[in-house]
Amino acid sequence: MPTIFTKIIHGEIPSYKVAEDEHFIAFLDINPNAKGHTLCVPKVEVDKLFDLEESTYLNLMQFSRKVAKALEKTVSCKRIGVAVVGLEVPHVHVHLIPLNQISDMDFSKKVSLTPDEFETLASKIQSAL
Amino acid sequence: MPTIFTKIIHGEIPSYKVAEDEHFIAFLDINPNAKGHTLCVPKVEVDKLFDLEESTYLNLMQFSRKVAKALEKTVSCKRIGVAVVGLEVPHVHVHLIPLNQISDMDFSKKVSLTPDEFETLASKIQSAL
Repeated sequence: MPTIFTKIIHGEIPSYKVAEDEHFIAFLDINPNAKGHTLCVPKVEVDKLFDLEESTYLNLMQFSRKVAKALEKTVSCKRIGVAVVGLEVPHVHVHLIPLNQISDMDFSKKVSLTPDEFETLASKIQSAL
Repeated sequence: MPTIFTKIIHGEIPSYKVAEDEHFIAFLDINPNAKGHTLCVPKVEVDKLFDLEESTYLNLMQFSRKVAKALEKTVSCKRIGVAVVGLEVPHVHVHLIPLNQISDMDFSKKVSLTPDEFETLASKIQSAL
């Protein structure tokens, strides 16, 4: 069965997309730790980060850096935090989280945005790429 | 003033080192979230991950992947988690954390190891590189 991220990649589930190329996609986490929390995902369906081919892994990290730099320009924060956990969805995803305090890294604490706020934010990040 | 990590790099502060090359060093976090929690640090003293030169950033990620693969072979875990936060020490460091549950990503929860346990663990990870 395809993962939820593969369904997003195929457009079967909608997302607030911020970047996409041939091999990777980035979209807003709809249950964000902080405003601007973004997921960077390889189109290849691999469960664990370090099981990716080295070249795919490095390209994912390069892609994530571009998205992070756009996020930094768009969202007010001290820095962009990175997390890769993956115990829930078995499809590699790099969390980019705009940080103002350490608790923004806490996945049990969430913020709410309206669909309009998500849409506007995704457009702004896209424009900053 | 040099950061605590620069002092470790220069050997002015002891560490349980697991890997080192010309540009990067990896050592056990002495206040680990989980057994095997390792920090990968560039020798260049830069505060924020995404302010590193792109080539240094990608080389750090490549170095971290090697260390993560050695960790996977050494420590019993479901996968290796990654976190970059950096609100405390202004010198880039990639946390590699052997995960068995999501709470292993929680920086407010720590495990204790004796100096002997740290030493043995560092040796085992080195041997798995």
